[in-house]
Amino acid sequence: MNHSTPSPSLSAAQTVSGLSIGEYLIRRLQEHGLEDIFGIPGDYILSFYGMLEKSPINVVGCTREDSAGFAADAYARVKGLGAVCVTYCVGGLSICNSIAGAYAEKSPVVILTGSPGLRERVNNPLLHHMVRDFSTQKDVFEKLCIAGAELSDPVTAFREIDRVLDAVVRFKRPGYIELPRDMVNVIPHISHVFPSQQTTSDPQALSEAVNEAAQLIEKAEKPVILAGVEMHRFHLQDELVALAEQTQIPVAATILGKSAMRETHPLYVGLYEGAMGREEVTQYVEESDLVLLLGTFMTDINLGVFTANLDPAKCIYATSEQLRLKHHHYHGITLADFVRELSQRKVTCAKRPMPDGIRMCMPPVGEVTEKPITTERMMQMINPLLDDETVVIADIGDALFASTQLVTQGNSEFLSPAYYTSMGFAVPATLGAQTAKRNARILAMIGDGAFQMTGMELSTIIRHGYDPVIIVLDNHGYGTERWLHAGDWEYNEIHPWAYSKLTEVLRGGTGYEVSTEKEFHEALHKAWDDREGMSIIHVHLPENDASRTLHRLGQRLGARV
Amino acid sequence: MNHSTPSPSLSAAQTVSGLSIGEYLIRRLQEHGLEDIFGIPGDYILSFYGMLEKSPINVVGCTREDSAGFAADAYARVKGLGAVCVTYCVGGLSICNSIAGAYAEKSPVVILTGSPGLRERVNNPLLHHMVRDFSTQKDVFEKLCIAGAELSDPVTAFREIDRVLDAVVRFKRPGYIELPRDMVNVIPHISHVFPSQQTTSDPQALSEAVNEAAQLIEKAEKPVILAGVEMHRFHLQDELVALAEQTQIPVAATILGKSAMRETHPLYVGLYEGAMGREEVTQYVEESDLVLLLGTFMTDINLGVFTANLDPAKCIYATSEQLRLKHHHYHGITLADFVRELSQRKVTCAKRPMPDGIRMCMPPVGEVTEKPITTERMMQMINPLLDDETVVIADIGDALFASTQLVTQGNSEFLSPAYYTSMGFAVPATLGAQTAKRNARILAMIGDGAFQMTGMELSTIIRHGYDPVIIVLDNHGYGTERWLHAGDWEYNEIHPWAYSKLTEVLRGGTGYEVSTEKEFHEALHKAWDDREGMSIIHVHLPENDASRTLHRLGQRLGARV
Repeated sequence: MNHSTPSPSLSAAQTVSGLSIGEYLIRRLQEHGLEDIFGIPGDYILSFYGMLEKSPINVVGCTREDSAGFAADAYARVKGLGAVCVTYCVGGLSICNSIAGAYAEKSPVVILTGSPGLRERVNNPLLHHMVRDFSTQKDVFEKLCIAGAELSDPVTAFREIDRVLDAVVRFKRPGYIELPRDMVNVIPHISHVFPSQQTTSDPQALSEAVNEAAQLIEKAEKPVILAGVEMHRFHLQDELVALAEQTQIPVAATILGKSAMRETHPLYVGLYEGAMGREEVTQYVEESDLVLLLGTFMTDINLGVFTANLDPAKCIYATSEQLRLKHHHYHGITLADFVRELSQRKVTCAKRPMPDGIRMCMPPVGEVTEKPITTERMMQMINPLLDDETVVIADIGDALFASTQLVTQGNSEFLSPAYYTSMGFAVPATLGAQTAKRNARILAMIGDGAFQMTGMELSTIIRHGYDPVIIVLDNHGYGTERWLHAGDWEYNEIHPWAYSKLTEVLRGGTGYEVSTEKEFHEALHKAWDDREGMSIIHVHLPENDASRTLHRLGQRLGARV
Repeated sequence: MNHSTPSPSLSAAQTVSGLSIGEYLIRRLQEHGLEDIFGIPGDYILSFYGMLEKSPINVVGCTREDSAGFAADAYARVKGLGAVCVTYCVGGLSICNSIAGAYAEKSPVVILTGSPGLRERVNNPLLHHMVRDFSTQKDVFEKLCIAGAELSDPVTAFREIDRVLDAVVRFKRPGYIELPRDMVNVIPHISHVFPSQQTTSDPQALSEAVNEAAQLIEKAEKPVILAGVEMHRFHLQDELVALAEQTQIPVAATILGKSAMRETHPLYVGLYEGAMGREEVTQYVEESDLVLLLGTFMTDINLGVFTANLDPAKCIYATSEQLRLKHHHYHGITLADFVRELSQRKVTCAKRPMPDGIRMCMPPVGEVTEKPITTERMMQMINPLLDDETVVIADIGDALFASTQLVTQGNSEFLSPAYYTSMGFAVPATLGAQTAKRNARILAMIGDGAFQMTGMELSTIIRHGYDPVIIVLDNHGYGTERWLHAGDWEYNEIHPWAYSKLTEVLRGGTGYEVSTEKEFHEALHKAWDDREGMSIIHVHLPENDASRTLHRLGQRLGARV
């Protein structure tokens, strides 16, 4: 990885002594704002689980480890740090996919895992849960994390914990901490000073970069801001709005950046998704003579499968990993400092007009009929419900494509694995987001194929009395793939479940099963008004139903399969 | 790994030309006896899925990738080779745990995965499903497989396929094959001769080793055979019986070796599980003056948490990885050749008596009462149903510990992840085993915690009209852990499901919910006689119910947590 690495400074230091390794870890997690942790116990991590259960951190037991990983990821997206605690190998190796997703989409998740005690490892015995050797799990997570540590030495354990947590928070990527079970209660005989690391930028480089950016902005005639995922991750939403309002530069967002600015803001033009998105937004962005890409990653999905047509000579490209103005690079500057400084500078530039009809809008619902309900009509009915307490969570496939059309309000969050695109994110993510934000009104949309992967995490949602509205889009199969690979392939069909009857199996919540506009409309409103518990709406979609976005994506991606 | 590496010889050779890389792969899998493959499609693997769907190989779509991995593992245990086919990263990284289990327990599973086309990788774009770089998935599986290949070069692709499949079959470990999606239809312009590799032993070393082993046997006064997992994996069950009958040496088995010899055989003494097992078997094995460990791995669970007390000077230790007589080693000898040669040698030795009462037996059911049903009583009721068409599949925890007490008959299979001990194996493994052996009568036992992980794979079992009997042992939580970590820990509690109502959600099968002996007895017999479809029996167990085996294990493991 090529990170610019601004230098950390000691802004505060605390001395600890007398704490065990497990206690120190819990304390540092709390200091980073962690209040809840997700996971499943197992024998190599039981004593740490006991310690957690006695601590102020709330332990949320899940049905499966990978779901715990997704929940921790969503929690991290909302709260700034998430954590998952699992046992050795059978637990850890079950979360590889969730953690890979957190890595790809920059979500700060800490993996805590047990392992055989050091004293048990003498003579290299074949202990249960072992794969190849004692380091297999650590070796795997080295590929999926920004930093990792095995706490096998009391002298360095505290420093290692600091190092991993700092890297997770700084780079917004997962970090791995392995606790051999006989180390949890060990009290290191050291006096440890831990720095409260604040990453600061090189002031002179920062000043030069902001000056240059300001000049580029002042000279621009048709500037635009393209806001990306890191506006969420580094909590720069307010700075983004301030910068836009100060300069009067219009703002577009990538899918992962959706809701970084409320989509009803007068300066917001819509989602930029290359050829997958609306033509007028694509044109508006690509015609610009200056594009400020802020926290944006140039992924294929973000860019509508590579049709993005942005000339680097016309771009200011700022992320946590690089700052590039036209064709030259600045090192040692944080994204936050750059955005903040620039937003505080009194830069002005030509007010760029926004064409009529470019702003996002959803047609009114109009008459609700007895016709079969379609994805497009669902979005029209859902859209008026959104307010600034709503969190929309979209799984992969048309659940995502369609729901990108929803217009988020105020501080709405829009959560989706829109780059890594792992199916099965939404239900566990609902658990994670609701745990992070107990009073939020969560609406989750999931295709039937994705629901069959992790939907049973509803169990934990019901157990905790949470009240999200879960919408299952049933097109009896992997619908997106039907648009990608022409032909009548059996492999895209899945077994039909009676999703709404899960309330009986899971002993809670209310189920609805609908096929027409009227039925959906009624179920949606009943569910929305029901704050007693979870609601699940099973929506039967017509054959070959698809949102406009999916139609466009299918045409472009299909050519490559 | 330190493998003895006997030299392969060309016993037959075939020339192929005109086949595409995808077609060659399918052909080689078929030649290795593969008839079915498990998995989930995704865009990077769609064109290969299309090819599979048109081939004679039957594609079994699963609800989740990790379940597909477990199914392929069980299929491999029964048939000799299994395979799972998934998309890039979101698919592949979801099966890490299943594949780790197959590695640990020596199950020959081939992982087939798609990846971005080579032409798409130019300029290192951020393609969806990518984690860190294009090789992340391959790097991870390098830690979990015996061999791996990325088929990125047409000139070497066929050789690479041969190499990986040969390693999988020879070492009974998983192998990884990655197909960039633009290579599937590429026809290499080469004439490829593929060796039908037969691994043979060094004849002189083999002769010397067998002679020495025969002499040790002839001199032994109290010999015993300890049969392990590789008797199953290398299909040496018949050779094992022949060797025992020729020499009249009694046979014990490890848990993973259970059912390698039918447990009603007059020479079978029972399961050797160290201190976890029955005292009389432990004593019988450890008092021996010669222990022939055949295909046995000395794992902690196999050995009852390290209480095994076997002096190497009194052991013949033969596995696929080493052949050790007392303290010296032979190289270049296969397990199969050694066992076969030894069984064909007319070796005789002193007939060692078996003490009264050492042989496995299950008390008769006796009166079936209205008392709460216990695990011990369940086993007594199940035992008489077993015949040589039965396959018993046990998940982890007391489902495993209790069911080791069942006396397998004839060619019964007993499948359990008894070393790697990953929860959630049994339901997907039932799918895999039933696919491999359509007419088998499968009885699967699963704890409630494990069921909540992967039990929804019942969906696929119902979809295919399979008729296994699934027993869910409900002690409302992670029961085994209660025995390992003293205290009243909330983290061991799980949300109660109404498991028997899953038949309504999944639209098939018959559900039973029982609490008493009479109810269980009736449900079991109804389910057993029902060959129309799947049956699921939800058994409510009394507080703190545990088999004798779990009691013993808890006492020993608990001290280490």
